[in-house]
Amino acid sequence: MLITRQHHPDNLETPAQALLEPLTPTHYVRSHFAVPLLDAAAFRLKVAGSVTSPLSLSFAELRALPATTRTLTLECAGNGRVYLTPSASGVQWEIGAVGTAQWTGVALRTLLERAGVGDNACEVVLVGADEGQMDDPVKSPGCIHYSRSLPLSRALGDVLLAYEMNGEALTPAHGAPLRAIVPGWYGMAAVKWLTEIRVVDHAYQGYFQTVDYARWEKQDDLPPVRVPLSEMRVKSQILTPAPHTCVQAGDHLELCGAAWTGGERTVQQIEVSTDGGHSWQDAEWQQDAAPGLWRHWRLSWTPQQPGEVKLLSRATDSAGQVQPAAHDPHRGSYEIHHTVAVPITVKAK
Amino acid sequence: MLITRQHHPDNLETPAQALLEPLTPTHYVRSHFAVPLLDAAAFRLKVAGSVTSPLSLSFAELRALPATTRTLTLECAGNGRVYLTPSASGVQWEIGAVGTAQWTGVALRTLLERAGVGDNACEVVLVGADEGQMDDPVKSPGCIHYSRSLPLSRALGDVLLAYEMNGEALTPAHGAPLRAIVPGWYGMAAVKWLTEIRVVDHAYQGYFQTVDYARWEKQDDLPPVRVPLSEMRVKSQILTPAPHTCVQAGDHLELCGAAWTGGERTVQQIEVSTDGGHSWQDAEWQQDAAPGLWRHWRLSWTPQQPGEVKLLSRATDSAGQVQPAAHDPHRGSYEIHHTVAVPITVKAK
Repeated sequence: MLITRQHHPDNLETPAQALLEPLTPTHYVRSHFAVPLLDAAAFRLKVAGSVTSPLSLSFAELRALPATTRTLTLECAGNGRVYLTPSASGVQWEIGAVGTAQWTGVALRTLLERAGVGDNACEVVLVGADEGQMDDPVKSPGCIHYSRSLPLSRALGDVLLAYEMNGEALTPAHGAPLRAIVPGWYGMAAVKWLTEIRVVDHAYQGYFQTVDYARWEKQDDLPPVRVPLSEMRVKSQILTPAPHTCVQAGDHLELCGAAWTGGERTVQQIEVSTDGGHSWQDAEWQQDAAPGLWRHWRLSWTPQQPGEVKLLSRATDSAGQVQPAAHDPHRGSYEIHHTVAVPITVKAK
Repeated sequence: MLITRQHHPDNLETPAQALLEPLTPTHYVRSHFAVPLLDAAAFRLKVAGSVTSPLSLSFAELRALPATTRTLTLECAGNGRVYLTPSASGVQWEIGAVGTAQWTGVALRTLLERAGVGDNACEVVLVGADEGQMDDPVKSPGCIHYSRSLPLSRALGDVLLAYEMNGEALTPAHGAPLRAIVPGWYGMAAVKWLTEIRVVDHAYQGYFQTVDYARWEKQDDLPPVRVPLSEMRVKSQILTPAPHTCVQAGDHLELCGAAWTGGERTVQQIEVSTDGGHSWQDAEWQQDAAPGLWRHWRLSWTPQQPGEVKLLSRATDSAGQVQPAAHDPHRGSYEIHHTVAVPITVKAK
């Protein structure tokens, strides 16, 4: 069961209960345009641009290359947007535009090494088969394909071109027959329906990394510059109890949630507050730490006093980064990782 | 007399008649924020970033450097926006956000040579003292100074840092005490109230060259990329008769206008149509061609038949570029240089 946040194109969110599983049984779906239905038998993946030997690979040729499987957490850069005040336009995600799956496929590095990256290469642009027109009549580039670039160094890292999700062939909604998975980055980099890889000698300034999926950053003591979103920010979510739950004073409760971060970092500390952020106590991890993967956490708690309670969780990662108490407006309507209170009611016994 | 197109900040347009003069008596004013009132006695121009010897120059020190005077045409990149269909947001300029003045000042190159540009230098960012908040709550970077970059090669060309306009000290509305003038480029590059020059080792992605003052361009056979506006496009305007003028069949008329182009190009041919674009005849230039400077043109015409007439002018530049018949939507609400009909009524004698 998925929650529909937008229909045409489909933008579907995972309910909180499903996020308690180590592998998400109903993984969220983010689409920008209609789903392209690609025939794997006719499929070709093109590798072109600043390369010595351009490639055009069939799906069978891709599947014959050495495969890797990794369990990774993917979060949409707009996850949590419904909690922004003032509200921002865009899909109104609650907490379920995040999920974990086992991805199987070929390393992007393998293809780049076969094609031979040119000396002047700077970035690798991933282009999807999905296409359409953006809304804004002035800022819109017209009818475009979804596309996103990676710095060459990141592209030569552990980027996966996946054709299986949880041991099964990708479904059309998840990018069949081939999609990118960029461990530690927000989902916008995980280009679905991937049909072209183009190596370029400059920083690519496509729509989905300038107008959209970008933020402002101060650099060089100058007015801020527009930078593409990339690595996930440290974040945690309370999954149980659900907001607006009623419990009784003296009841034994298990507070459960998930936490993750980006890059090659891991989440190291998880704190919970049962008094709206006045005091914090450590919760307990349910799994070991691994880069690119969430960790579930748990805390036993028995409320003593009746009243309205605000539950909060706060994660700290291996780089010492802590979830902030409020959204940073320079991040626009993305990278929403501040602590969000879950209100519950404690009734007298 | 200037036409007010926006008040707070002031955006003021030159009436068509004033554009018939070789030097524009009332030059247009484009402001993004409130006019900063800078005291020339306390003024410092900072040259910093990737340079071997950062500079901080007083106004007196700037005036003591070798000076250059050039007569140049400056056009706002949004000039003609009122003619777009569908209409676009932004200042609704008619034809008068263009003008010509004599600019006196120091070559930017002189300062860059004194400061010693680093080997890794890529662009030169010009920062103005004017600052404020942009409207869009999501895409806005917050309170920012106006800033714009030039590729290093262009910055080392004939860019002027002007302190005089038509032989007099700059007025506050025109950027006192110091502004940039970039010959052949749209006005957004001519940063007013210039207080800082910063050499950077990458392409600067500030607000006024990404969200604003940018357009979409196809490159490398990929989805289009956002590029900063730069050189002016070939353009001509009919200055007399005014739109909706009534004349009599058999009257002798002088059709007059101006034409210009960008970069180091010059306008070479000017054609006029008195039948809505069905047929064209050459008009006569009033001045020789010079890069960065407009040319006035004239054509004698005696309408014979009563009726509604659409007058058009069309310029061709030294690179063979011709004004198009319609606005290119990839240019958004900028670079509006298509031929625009001037409707007049010819009455029976």
